[in-house]
Amino acid sequence: MRTIFFEEYETGVERLSAGRTVTETDIVMHAGQTGDFYPHHMDAEWCRTQEFGQRIAHGTLVFSIGIGMTAGEINPEAFSYGYDRLRFVKPVFIGDTIRAKATIKEKREHPKRSGYGFVVELVEVLNQLGETVLVCEHLLMVRKRPQ
Amino acid sequence: MRTIFFEEYETGVERLSAGRTVTETDIVMHAGQTGDFYPHHMDAEWCRTQEFGQRIAHGTLVFSIGIGMTAGEINPEAFSYGYDRLRFVKPVFIGDTIRAKATIKEKREHPKRSGYGFVVELVEVLNQLGETVLVCEHLLMVRKRPQ
Amino acid sequence: MRTIFFEEYETGVERLSAGRTVTETDIVMHAGQTGDFYPHHMDAEWCRTQEFGQRIAHGTLVFSIGIGMTAGEINPEAFSYGYDRLRFVKPVFIGDTIRAKATIKEKREHPKRSGYGFVVELVEVLNQLGETVLVCEHLLMVRKRPQ
Amino acid sequence: MRTIFFEEYETGVERLSAGRTVTETDIVMHAGQTGDFYPHHMDAEWCRTQEFGQRIAHGTLVFSIGIGMTAGEINPEAFSYGYDRLRFVKPVFIGDTIRAKATIKEKREHPKRSGYGFVVELVEVLNQLGETVLVCEHLLMVRKRPQ
Amino acid sequence: MRTIFFEEYETGVERLSAGRTVTETDIVMHAGQTGDFYPHHMDAEWCRTQEFGQRIAHGTLVFSIGIGMTAGEINPEAFSYGYDRLRFVKPVFIGDTIRAKATIKEKREHPKRSGYGFVVELVEVLNQLGETVLVCEHLLMVRKRPQ
Amino acid sequence: MRTIFFEEYETGVERLSAGRTVTETDIVMHAGQTGDFYPHHMDAEWCRTQEFGQRIAHGTLVFSIGIGMTAGEINPEAFSYGYDRLRFVKPVFIGDTIRAKATIKEKREHPKRSGYGFVVELVEVLNQLGETVLVCEHLLMVRKRPQ
Repeated sequence: MRTIFFEEYETGVERLSAGRTVTETDIVMHAGQTGDFYPHHMDAEWCRTQEFGQRIAHGTLVFSIGIGMTAGEINPEAFSYGYDRLRFVKPVFIGDTIRAKATIKEKREHPKRSGYGFVVELVEVLNQLGETVLVCEHLLMVRKRPQ
Repeated sequence: MRTIFFEEYETGVERLSAGRTVTETDIVMHAGQTGDFYPHHMDAEWCRTQEFGQRIAHGTLVFSIGIGMTAGEINPEAFSYGYDRLRFVKPVFIGDTIRAKATIKEKREHPKRSGYGFVVELVEVLNQLGETVLVCEHLLMVRKRPQ
Repeated sequence: MRTIFFEEYETGVERLSAGRTVTETDIVMHAGQTGDFYPHHMDAEWCRTQEFGQRIAHGTLVFSIGIGMTAGEINPEAFSYGYDRLRFVKPVFIGDTIRAKATIKEKREHPKRSGYGFVVELVEVLNQLGETVLVCEHLLMVRKRPQ
Repeated sequence: MRTIFFEEYETGVERLSAGRTVTETDIVMHAGQTGDFYPHHMDAEWCRTQEFGQRIAHGTLVFSIGIGMTAGEINPEAFSYGYDRLRFVKPVFIGDTIRAKATIKEKREHPKRSGYGFVVELVEVLNQLGETVLVCEHLLMVRKRPQ
Repeated sequence: MRTIFFEEYETGVERLSAGRTVTETDIVMHAGQTGDFYPHHMDAEWCRTQEFGQRIAHGTLVFSIGIGMTAGEINPEAFSYGYDRLRFVKPVFIGDTIRAKATIKEKREHPKRSGYGFVVELVEVLNQLGETVLVCEHLLMVRKRPQ
Repeated sequence: MRTIFFEEYETGVERLSAGRTVTETDIVMHAGQTGDFYPHHMDAEWCRTQEFGQRIAHGTLVFSIGIGMTAGEINPEAFSYGYDRLRFVKPVFIGDTIRAKATIKEKREHPKRSGYGFVVELVEVLNQLGETVLVCEHLLMVRKRPQ
């Protein structure tokens, strides 16, 4: 754990995670965890007749793994407030290797609590071709340095 | 599968899923799937010293299960475009039972493609006390009825 | 949930599930769940020397998935009593896509309880070639309409 | 592996497996494997309002574990043909410890293939109180000793 | 369970397990269990640029499966004391089939407790080419026959 | 990734991981991964009659999690060579929270390859009472700084 106060976040700073190959196992386990057994993820025969020609990862799987990959050291002064503008830009197929890039995009005051500010982190999940497959903004509520 | 065109969605219509108890298994499996082993989810001893006094479910887990619970019949004319304003309103603890409520909140034209519209579905995840634990807006891009 | 009394079941009515591809993950997870690590399911080298030339899914796995695929809406007046004549007709290989067909085959009186009857549902699990791989009869004990 | 021909099976011979405690993990994993998220297995709140007052294991889970527990040494001359009269006699709850008893119940000629016979093994799954929770007959097709 | 006292172990006696194919599922599950998502196991793209050209199984996975495969009948008089000289001799790739060979290598007196002795079992994990991929010595503390 | 050459390792340097609660899920999953369903881990009823009175975690599970917890940043110049003197000092029960401490204990020359040395890292797994439950020595083969 390492304490970072609101004042110390700098816009433009970015970090890139290690890569991870999305496997058939991940999709089967995610179907089992969420109960979403849609044929888009689970029926290779049906997928062959569709636009992409193969099974695709659940959006919630790509999001969960992508966010997991951005989890670095814990900052006890930061709280995950939510996500904005989560978009599934391209499909992720079995065997694709993804990594997550997180960039401090914006800092703003908390509208109601003066001891806090919001840090907006842009999260981009990229595949092995460098294409963006998912994008979202992570809202962190961060304590200001005590005065 | 059942085809529903843009014109047939009616704002205000809501559906409520069955309930599901969030278990320690779900949290351990989700940590394993995402690589997020933060002590908030995995270290019962440390959690005892924190505000909530116990382990809490990952935000991405509650989101993934919640969205999974809203997955009903497949509409081949609707595409999941993304999510807006995803917020983690209250923590979910081991043993809490959640259900998802989805309400058609808004319909709007697609700004660029005249054959499509956007349906905004408000998703609320509720616990056994009826409290909202997560909220988000699901954007569906839906084909209009061919003329 | 939707209440259906014994009188409302009609013989000959059938329903067909969505498809699901049986994966290596399913077999490995089922071995882990049941403790059945027989080489027929787990040892690709040994399987190469056998009749089928490859690993096959556990019978209990095909049965469990097949029955799971027939689970539709809950009828609170029906109870799963058991299964008869469960037969493994053909092997299921990794990559096969199965679906389940359930047909109301027979209705009969409960021999002892006059307020109930038995509904016999024939369950057939089919692969992507339309071949039957598993067949069984599901016995449902269903309440009669109160008079 | 140990070869046992049809002639060597003796009716009345029984074997009893080790015990295994059925856990919440088993139920959650089985729901994920089969897609059966019925509230009987997954919704502790709803179960509190029902006859048993708590979640129960899937029938297919008890069957799969029970059969897995009977799997001992492999007999290359025996083939699992199917199961008859599978009955769910009592519910299995989280924390129950089950074991499987297999008894050679009957031997009969194969109606069509003179080189084979059927061995009927009665499988009983017992809980920690010694109560039978599941019963079925396992049909083994076994080669006769070459002459 | 079968009681075997220290005196009954014979050096040179060996047993060979059944085989088991190491799958992508095993590696993904082991990463999830241990939190070790190193690219050596999880990033197929990065592995392509490395010496082995493909993902390799975790050392702890090969060890855990290998030891699991040596687990035969329980001897209530033997206690697993630890392991010595555990070495990862060759990488295990997805699709390799491993088996475990256990050989009683040595017996020695317990230095402090006269009622016990140590049995040293050499465990070798072999792949489908007969190559040793892992080796270790398992120390068993075994009770002597009561006099 | 961060390159650290043999010369830079300093004996006496230690690092302590975050904590992780060992759950019933971990044990059930590890049994499923390894095929070790011994009653010590899986049969709560039998365990009640034994010395510890409850189920204990597999030794290979505590080892795998403990080693996983020591995995920090990747050093591309270090290779895991093996483990010595792995000992199971105390049982780990469901609900125990463990952490891993790794201490550079010793450096020695590689007997045959002059460009490498061995770094011996003492790994201790501690429970929530600060008791050592597992200890081992991790052998790292590390490249020397090129001259």
